Amino acid sequence: MSTRIGILTGGGDCPGLNGVIRAVTLHARQTYGWEVVGIHNGFEGLYDEEYIELTAHSVQHSLPRGGTMLGSSNRANPFAYPVKLPDGRVEIHDVSARCMSNLARLDLHGLIVVGGDGSMSFAHKFIQRGATRIVGVPKTIDNDLEATDYTVGFQTAVEVVVDAIDRLHTTAESHERIMIVEVMGRYAGWIALTSGLAGGAHVVLIPEIDYNADRVIEAFHRRHGRGVSYSIAVVAEGAKPRGGALSVVTAGDITRQEKLGGSGMRLAEMIAERTEYEVRTTVLGHIQRGGAPCAFDRELATRFGVKAVELIAEGKFGHVAAVENGHLVAKPMEKAVKKLKLVDPAGELVRTAKGVGIEFGD
Amino acid sequence: MSTRIGILTGGGDCPGLNGVIRAVTLHARQTYGWEVVGIHNGFEGLYDEEYIELTAHSVQHSLPRGGTMLGSSNRANPFAYPVKLPDGRVEIHDVSARCMSNLARLDLHGLIVVGGDGSMSFAHKFIQRGATRIVGVPKTIDNDLEATDYTVGFQTAVEVVVDAIDRLHTTAESHERIMIVEVMGRYAGWIALTSGLAGGAHVVLIPEIDYNADRVIEAFHRRHGRGVSYSIAVVAEGAKPRGGALSVVTAGDITRQEKLGGSGMRLAEMIAERTEYEVRTTVLGHIQRGGAPCAFDRELATRFGVKAVELIAEGKFGHVAAVENGHLVAKPMEKAVKKLKLVDPAGELVRTAKGVGIEFGD
Amino acid sequence: MSTRIGILTGGGDCPGLNGVIRAVTLHARQTYGWEVVGIHNGFEGLYDEEYIELTAHSVQHSLPRGGTMLGSSNRANPFAYPVKLPDGRVEIHDVSARCMSNLARLDLHGLIVVGGDGSMSFAHKFIQRGATRIVGVPKTIDNDLEATDYTVGFQTAVEVVVDAIDRLHTTAESHERIMIVEVMGRYAGWIALTSGLAGGAHVVLIPEIDYNADRVIEAFHRRHGRGVSYSIAVVAEGAKPRGGALSVVTAGDITRQEKLGGSGMRLAEMIAERTEYEVRTTVLGHIQRGGAPCAFDRELATRFGVKAVELIAEGKFGHVAAVENGHLVAKPMEKAVKKLKLVDPAGELVRTAKGVGIEFGD
Amino acid sequence: MSTRIGILTGGGDCPGLNGVIRAVTLHARQTYGWEVVGIHNGFEGLYDEEYIELTAHSVQHSLPRGGTMLGSSNRANPFAYPVKLPDGRVEIHDVSARCMSNLARLDLHGLIVVGGDGSMSFAHKFIQRGATRIVGVPKTIDNDLEATDYTVGFQTAVEVVVDAIDRLHTTAESHERIMIVEVMGRYAGWIALTSGLAGGAHVVLIPEIDYNADRVIEAFHRRHGRGVSYSIAVVAEGAKPRGGALSVVTAGDITRQEKLGGSGMRLAEMIAERTEYEVRTTVLGHIQRGGAPCAFDRELATRFGVKAVELIAEGKFGHVAAVENGHLVAKPMEKAVKKLKLVDPAGELVRTAKGVGIEFGD
Repeated sequence: MSTRIGILTGGGDCPGLNGVIRAVTLHARQTYGWEVVGIHNGFEGLYDEEYIELTAHSVQHSLPRGGTMLGSSNRANPFAYPVKLPDGRVEIHDVSARCMSNLARLDLHGLIVVGGDGSMSFAHKFIQRGATRIVGVPKTIDNDLEATDYTVGFQTAVEVVVDAIDRLHTTAESHERIMIVEVMGRYAGWIALTSGLAGGAHVVLIPEIDYNADRVIEAFHRRHGRGVSYSIAVVAEGAKPRGGALSVVTAGDITRQEKLGGSGMRLAEMIAERTEYEVRTTVLGHIQRGGAPCAFDRELATRFGVKAVELIAEGKFGHVAAVENGHLVAKPMEKAVKKLKLVDPAGELVRTAKGVGIEFGD
Repeated sequence: MSTRIGILTGGGDCPGLNGVIRAVTLHARQTYGWEVVGIHNGFEGLYDEEYIELTAHSVQHSLPRGGTMLGSSNRANPFAYPVKLPDGRVEIHDVSARCMSNLARLDLHGLIVVGGDGSMSFAHKFIQRGATRIVGVPKTIDNDLEATDYTVGFQTAVEVVVDAIDRLHTTAESHERIMIVEVMGRYAGWIALTSGLAGGAHVVLIPEIDYNADRVIEAFHRRHGRGVSYSIAVVAEGAKPRGGALSVVTAGDITRQEKLGGSGMRLAEMIAERTEYEVRTTVLGHIQRGGAPCAFDRELATRFGVKAVELIAEGKFGHVAAVENGHLVAKPMEKAVKKLKLVDPAGELVRTAKGVGIEFGD
Repeated sequence: MSTRIGILTGGGDCPGLNGVIRAVTLHARQTYGWEVVGIHNGFEGLYDEEYIELTAHSVQHSLPRGGTMLGSSNRANPFAYPVKLPDGRVEIHDVSARCMSNLARLDLHGLIVVGGDGSMSFAHKFIQRGATRIVGVPKTIDNDLEATDYTVGFQTAVEVVVDAIDRLHTTAESHERIMIVEVMGRYAGWIALTSGLAGGAHVVLIPEIDYNADRVIEAFHRRHGRGVSYSIAVVAEGAKPRGGALSVVTAGDITRQEKLGGSGMRLAEMIAERTEYEVRTTVLGHIQRGGAPCAFDRELATRFGVKAVELIAEGKFGHVAAVENGHLVAKPMEKAVKKLKLVDPAGELVRTAKGVGIEFGD
Repeated sequence: MSTRIGILTGGGDCPGLNGVIRAVTLHARQTYGWEVVGIHNGFEGLYDEEYIELTAHSVQHSLPRGGTMLGSSNRANPFAYPVKLPDGRVEIHDVSARCMSNLARLDLHGLIVVGGDGSMSFAHKFIQRGATRIVGVPKTIDNDLEATDYTVGFQTAVEVVVDAIDRLHTTAESHERIMIVEVMGRYAGWIALTSGLAGGAHVVLIPEIDYNADRVIEAFHRRHGRGVSYSIAVVAEGAKPRGGALSVVTAGDITRQEKLGGSGMRLAEMIAERTEYEVRTTVLGHIQRGGAPCAFDRELATRFGVKAVELIAEGKFGHVAAVENGHLVAKPMEKAVKKLKLVDPAGELVRTAKGVGIEFGD
């Protein structure tokens, strides 16, 4: 029987996943002659034994496509899995043993887990319990993994946000308005900061810097004082005003925030209460997560996919592919799951932003 | 003294306004040797006497740019104008007499008013009071003017919405979600219907067809029953459920809606209450109104601008440029302001949409 | 046995073909309960009996995709078909009888032929020989069919060209160059004229107006004389200088032209010979024919597809779906194949272009 | 008198130059209170003393715009300058002394030269002759400067090429063709390699690897043999076949190549001579150099601009801003001009490309 490897994609969506799957498939088959098994819906497919064989034909059109051809599932935690009982009720069970025995039965030479910190921590636990032949590819549009300089999907999200900011600029200016764009980033402000910088925003609010609403409003006033009667503010989901009751976000708020754009709306209300400026809010939501990846992410996805196959070929299990100083390297998987990479409020990027006059409300 | 014409842009923003200004300027100067005076901020500039001379040089880069280089003002109603008193208070006055005397002093061979129904009705009143040398160019992203088949800006809004829908499709599918996109259109559903059709949406809710929420939810169920576990719904701002307390929209609601995306959120809440589907909402807001016009709108803007100059040259005052059956024609200005062009629930476009399986909730 | 219809796509590529196939499939199945048979590679698939069943699932992702999922073949002329003999030689045969008997065996309630003038003339001959249950959908990026105001694919080509022109403008200006863009259009100048108008070009050369090279060069000089030291020229493939040996295009030239960009290069050489301006040429080639259709073409494709099914349902065989004055109508198929719709050198569009200063070299 | 710095842009166009100018202007004025003088048309403006004051207002719309608001001139070599004599003749003179005395008269605290290797070598000579207060910002779409990991403009060129490749894929596939895309890169293959990787090309030909045409054609045959009857080839301008007379490129050829797309055409002819595949060629030309920069380049341009001002503030004259391992650093100017950074035929990027099956003809 021929050698076989597997691949699954877990967690939230991000552009470039199909590029990873494609590169893994082409490289494994053409260079090593391995078969490639795609596992459906992340760890859910491992539980349900839903597999598909991946060939050059199956990945033929996948490079420019968003989403993941293997499907994903945000809730497929094998250690706390929602099992549907015959009577219709759902109970949470640890199904990791069954997943591991299914995995063993697949008899894989190696398994590639493409995912964020959630999927990586499940993979890490599997390794600790003996399913050692696993390697990872980190992905998140938030770019907040300590292990790697870049994650697949981030740059596309930034391009989408900058396209939107470009469209708002002209209206803001000719109609003298404050335009708020709420973008993703619950814990890390990379999308907001990078797209604010590239989009020519005037205010950028990020989770790493609690903002003083008065400082933000002063920034608008300063611009108006110079005769520039419009402004663009990019606000990360997780940005919050300094102190005050509003900064206590309850679970209910989070759900609501997810649907509604909490942080952008909150800022809009503050401005409306304290000034007479006309404000308009855009909540980009999931258009940041889907659709065709930009060229940068397609290149990155291809390099990650090829590297992941190399990790298996070299026996570097327990590692993830990562970019360090522009080079593809292997990093221990624990490193990928341990801590978030946050924006440094005193770092070069924030200083650059302040250098061109961007206000952070600090 | 040489012959002189004027131009002003009024009302909300839409892509293509600069293309109209450019075409008017180039055609008037090059073909007729007329000077062109740009009036700032709609009728506000007529009150404040803020003008600018327009030359080939001033419009050199304007064709691909969103917004309006002349500025606009939503509130510049000369018949109910917010006048700032010396003590800082603001009073509403009829300043039309002053506007008309300023207009007379400009000694224009003709004035081109580019605007929606608001600006057109002001222009019409000016004509009735004797400032007869006015022609109009209809613009609105909503495409809801009876006088013309197409308005400048509409097609760009549709392209922007379809780009967003494309990005949502892949995530919706690989993550099994219902994605709601709220789009502009308070009274007319043209943007929602056209972009839903072109974007491959499964549900389209428009102001012209009050929707039965149960029918909408059944449509989601039907898709799920066929094993297709995701859906895209495009919802116009003005779409509302049939009957029930929710359909009473108060003034406060409208403001809130403008900031928040009321109709999309309302649908999301209904789905969340009655089903277990995961729902995500995107509120595109003003990115539908700004930024570079698509080629279609640039062509249209240029044709409208040239036609408006022709209307002056031919002495067809009191008329607006309009597209009828693909041809540029002149229509009486009253016609442009009289009634909205709404989507016909029994017309070809709705029937086409139903033909490919789109659910309207009726 | 259930009712069955068929569809094939013939001729050159254009964005939107998949949208037509999708609409036909969804409407025929969902509204009428008909089966839909897709015939591969135009009339070639009819000869080879290569068919596929089309379902909602097979067209699920097709709306935003370029190309045609059914394949096409430029050379599949059933009346002069390249038949491969057992000894490897190729002979040209009339295989229409075999195609018609295969068609009869398919027992279709109706066949939809999506194609340009070539495919329509084959379809028309089939009808004359008794295979009467055929309707057509006209497509060509050139927009040069007399039968319809718009053809699927044209507007996308224009958007692609205008994107390219936008990119050339800034370099042309900051580096003081003449930029030539050669675009498709061997007999009709619709793409060149519309994209030149929408892209703000300064010179537009089309097949319908033989150009005087001296006039074109004077236009560049005039701009330079006004201190504007750059220009953009859009040149249709089929544009040619007035008189002279160069206007005789031989078969060899045509092949060369197809590969190289003959008309753009010819103009570049003329400018280089007679002036000192720096010239750069871009030959867009097939990027005008492929890739995701714009929203306008997706809407149009969907309407055409639904209409084609309606034509079958109403028994209007021998007709094509067409747009007339914005409405979907049925036109006799002879009308679609009889003559080309050319740009009228004295029409509104050319006059508009001249109104904003575009030079045609006439 | 207040402190003053200067900036000029030299050499060919690339997207992002305006972002550098904007960042320099905003940072110098807002952070240091310095005046900023823009010098027109590279070193030409230094000779002609054509300057402009740069303010926040002058750079307000520049971030998303291609080209350079200061103009540039490819031929403005102060050491071999085309001086126009009163009788109309042009003579080549060394005008560096006059440029240096004009520069001295400007009394700049520092001069920022934004340019490629040409401009940097002129700047370096000025420094050697005593005009020491110069710093540099490297730019080239070719990404071939040894001093820096990334140059402004490169990523935009790649995105433009990948957009074009995407459009060609669908037609290539449904019409069974070989599509050749000729891209920029006379000495370095970065654009061809990166866009080929990101665009899913099947053949990539670069200047660093002379290709064996038979190997390329075998690659097409292999694909056909597997039933995949289409291919995409990305060819750098400077790619050439191994051995043979064709590899001797004369000066005349270079000019022709510049206008016509020499390398793409040469490959097309080889394929046409030796196979029966249908081939189509696209020559993207200057659309790779112009237009709106992508977000990546806007961010990079802003960081480079801020860094250049910092170099002056820190007195690091004779240095250029550079990216090294993701960080903005200062590098000696000699390093920027000394040698090209070429694609390593044995490096990770080429190995990755081969890993997914890309053929280089080696």
